[in-house]
Amino acid sequence: MNAEVIAIGDELTSGQRLDTNSQWLSEQLGDLGIRVVFHSTVADDLDSNVRVFLSALDRADIVIATGGLGPTADDLTRQALAQATGTRLVLDQDSLEHIRARFARSGRDMPKSNDIQAMFPEGSRVIPNPDGTAPGIDLQVNRDGGRKARVFALPGVPAEMRQMWDDTVAQALRNCSGDRQQVIRHRRIKCFGAGESHLEQMLPDLIRRGRSPSVGITAHQATITLRITAAGETEERALAAMEPTIRSIHEALGDLVFGEGDDELHHVVTRMLVESQATLATVECGSGGLIAHWMESAAQFGNAYLGGLTLLGQNASRDLLDVPQSLLESEGLVSEMVARDMAQRVRQRFGASWGLAVSPFPSPSTDPKAPSRYYIAMATDTGVHSKSSTFLGHPDIWRERSGKQALDFVRHELLRERKVVS
Amino acid sequence: MNAEVIAIGDELTSGQRLDTNSQWLSEQLGDLGIRVVFHSTVADDLDSNVRVFLSALDRADIVIATGGLGPTADDLTRQALAQATGTRLVLDQDSLEHIRARFARSGRDMPKSNDIQAMFPEGSRVIPNPDGTAPGIDLQVNRDGGRKARVFALPGVPAEMRQMWDDTVAQALRNCSGDRQQVIRHRRIKCFGAGESHLEQMLPDLIRRGRSPSVGITAHQATITLRITAAGETEERALAAMEPTIRSIHEALGDLVFGEGDDELHHVVTRMLVESQATLATVECGSGGLIAHWMESAAQFGNAYLGGLTLLGQNASRDLLDVPQSLLESEGLVSEMVARDMAQRVRQRFGASWGLAVSPFPSPSTDPKAPSRYYIAMATDTGVHSKSSTFLGHPDIWRERSGKQALDFVRHELLRERKVVS
Repeated sequence: MNAEVIAIGDELTSGQRLDTNSQWLSEQLGDLGIRVVFHSTVADDLDSNVRVFLSALDRADIVIATGGLGPTADDLTRQALAQATGTRLVLDQDSLEHIRARFARSGRDMPKSNDIQAMFPEGSRVIPNPDGTAPGIDLQVNRDGGRKARVFALPGVPAEMRQMWDDTVAQALRNCSGDRQQVIRHRRIKCFGAGESHLEQMLPDLIRRGRSPSVGITAHQATITLRITAAGETEERALAAMEPTIRSIHEALGDLVFGEGDDELHHVVTRMLVESQATLATVECGSGGLIAHWMESAAQFGNAYLGGLTLLGQNASRDLLDVPQSLLESEGLVSEMVARDMAQRVRQRFGASWGLAVSPFPSPSTDPKAPSRYYIAMATDTGVHSKSSTFLGHPDIWRERSGKQALDFVRHELLRERKVVS
Repeated sequence: MNAEVIAIGDELTSGQRLDTNSQWLSEQLGDLGIRVVFHSTVADDLDSNVRVFLSALDRADIVIATGGLGPTADDLTRQALAQATGTRLVLDQDSLEHIRARFARSGRDMPKSNDIQAMFPEGSRVIPNPDGTAPGIDLQVNRDGGRKARVFALPGVPAEMRQMWDDTVAQALRNCSGDRQQVIRHRRIKCFGAGESHLEQMLPDLIRRGRSPSVGITAHQATITLRITAAGETEERALAAMEPTIRSIHEALGDLVFGEGDDELHHVVTRMLVESQATLATVECGSGGLIAHWMESAAQFGNAYLGGLTLLGQNASRDLLDVPQSLLESEGLVSEMVARDMAQRVRQRFGASWGLAVSPFPSPSTDPKAPSRYYIAMATDTGVHSKSSTFLGHPDIWRERSGKQALDFVRHELLRERKVVS
C-alpha cells in the first residue's frame, strides 16, 4: 500500500504558515508500513482541490488530507471531495448536534455558516473530533479497474488532527491493511561530540542505501541522530532485527552515544545526576541562559538541578558571586581561572555537589568572523576540572553548541566518576 | 504568472525531515508578485519525479524544485527533468572545473560519481552554487499551445538554495516578468495581551477575504501577528496603500501592539529600557529560565539587561537572595509577597534600576488540569508593582506564555512611566 498526503490552504501555498502536518502524518504512515510517495499542497481553490484529489486517488491507495474543513467560504475540502468522487453532500444529524452542543457549552449561538461542517459526501463515515467543531471524513472510493482507494480528510489544526489520527484513523488503517501488513519500527540513537561526516566515517558499512535495517543520519544543532528502521511480521521481530545494528553502533561510537529516542543531553545529565545522588548549579557568563533553561525543563527526570545564574559582564560576576576584583583584573573576565573560580563559588552558593561555569558564551555582538575562546569549568568536592574551546561563526548557532558542549562536559565527568567508583 | 514548488527526497516523503524550503520559496515568490498554487513533494523515484515535473509544467508558469542534485544514485532531478522535457543530458565543462576545484581546496580527490553534477539538460543555463558542489539548473520549456514554462532546480540544502535564489533566481524572475509585474509588499504588526479571536473582533472590517490591502492573522505562543499585504506598481505605492490600514490597526488596538516586522517582546523591552536609561535584572523561580535567555539574546538592541537568577525551590531563594525564612514560611514560596520581596532583592543585588520577579513558572511536574496561580512583581526606585494570573494547560505552553506575560508587564510599566514623564 502507498499513500499520498495532501495539505490544503492558501496560508500554506503562500508560505505564511509552515506545514508540519504532512511530515507528522508521513511518519505515522511509515510506522504502519504504508509508504508515502507524494505530498501535495494546494491553495483554497475548488478546481485545484478537485484536481489534486483526482490525481491522488489515481496514484495512491490511501489519501490523507488536512485542512479546508472549517465553516467559512474558503473551506472547500467537502465540496472538492464530493466533486472528485461524483457524490453529493448530505447532512449528518449527529454531527450537527455535536457542533451545536460545542457552541452551547461555550455560551455562544452557532452561526448558520457552521451547518456546512455537518455535511458529508454520501457514503462516508464521520471521524469524530473531540477537540473542535470540524468532524473528519472517511470515504471509500471505487476507482477504474476495480481498484479501491480510501480518503481520510482531517482538520488542519495540528492538535485536533493528531488526536483524530490516534483515536480513529490509525486503527482503521491497521484493520484495512489486514495480515498482509509488515510492521515497521524505528529506533533513534542520539550522539554528541563529533560532526556528522566524522560520525558517518566511523560507521562505514551501516549507512548505505538498500541496507536492512536501514540507518539514517541527521544533525540538528550539533546533536546527531541515527535512525534505525526495520520491518518484520511482528513488532518483536522488527525490533529484534535491529539489535545487531544497534550493538554495532554502540561498539563503534562508545561514549559519543548519549541516549535514545527523545533523549536530550539535559535529560541524560539530569538522570545521571539523580543516579549519583548529586545536585548541580550553574553560572553562565556572557550570553546564553540556555543551560538553566534546558536543565529546568528536564525537571521531570528528577530534582538534581538547583538553579543558575545568567550574568552579563564583570560587575555582575563580582556582585553576585563575589569573584575577587583582583582576579578579574589580573586574568580578565574571559579566562580559565575566572571560570574555575565561578564554578567553585556557584557550587558553594547553591550548596550543590557540582558547580558548572561557562564563560563566556558568544554574545550577539561577537564578530562571527573572529574565532573566540571560551571556558567550561566544573567544580566538585574533589577539585575543579576545566577545558577551553574556540568557536567561530554566528553566535546564534554557537550559543546552542557551546551550551551543549558544557552539558556534555558534565556528562563525561559523570561517566569518569562512575568508572572510578566501579 | 503562477508557480509550483517541488521538493524532492525520500527523507521528506517519509517524514524524516521537515521541508522548510517550500515555505520559504513561496514567500519569496509572493514578494515578486507570483502566486504559488501548488506544492508537490516526491520520493526519490525516477518515474514519480518525471510525473511530478510533467504535471507542474502543465499547470504552472514557473516551477521551482529543490533537492535531488547530489552525486549519488538517488539524486534524480537532472534525469527526471531531461526525461520530462524530452532533452538529453550534456556535460558542462565549467561546472566540472568548479566541482573539481572545490574538492582540491579541501584536499580531497573528486570521486567519479561527482561527474554527474556537471551534467545538464541540453539548452539549460547553469545556476552557480558558491557554497557547494551542486550547481542549479535554469531551463525554458515550450509547452503545448505555444505556452512557455520555466524550471529552476536548486539543491535541497537550505543555505545553498537561499544563496542561489538571492544571487540568481530572484533576478531572473524579475527580468522575465518584465513591466507587467506588480510589486507585492508585506508588513507585520506584532501584538500581545489578547487572544487571536478577541483581537479579530476588535478589527471587524479588516480581516476579510478579498479585501485590499489584505490582513492576515496568525498566533504563535500568545504573540499575534497581523500581516498586511498590498500590491502596487512600485514599492512606494504598495507601501503607501497599506498606510490607512496600519493606522486603523494602531487606533483599534492601542498598546496591544508592541512592534513591527521581526520584533519580539524582549527586543522591544530592551529598546525601551535603553531609551529610559534603565537597567533590568530578573529572577525566575520555579521552572523557566526563559526570560534570562530571551533578554540575553536581545543584547544587540542595547546593554540594558544585567543578568538573571533561575532558582528552583525555597532553599535557593533563601540562599541566593536572602529572602527571609520567616516570609517564606508565613506566605509560602508561591506568593505575591515573596515575588515582591524577590523583585526588590534582585534589583539591589545587581544594582539595576528595575527588578523583575516571576514566581513560579509552571514546572513540568505541574498537573495540567489544575489551574495554578503565579505572580509577577516589578521593583523600581519608586516602589513595587505586582500582579497575579492563573495558568491552565500544559507547562511547556505556559512557560512561554507566562514568560511573555512578565515581559509585557515590564513593557506596560515602561509605557506608564513614559506617560507620567511626558
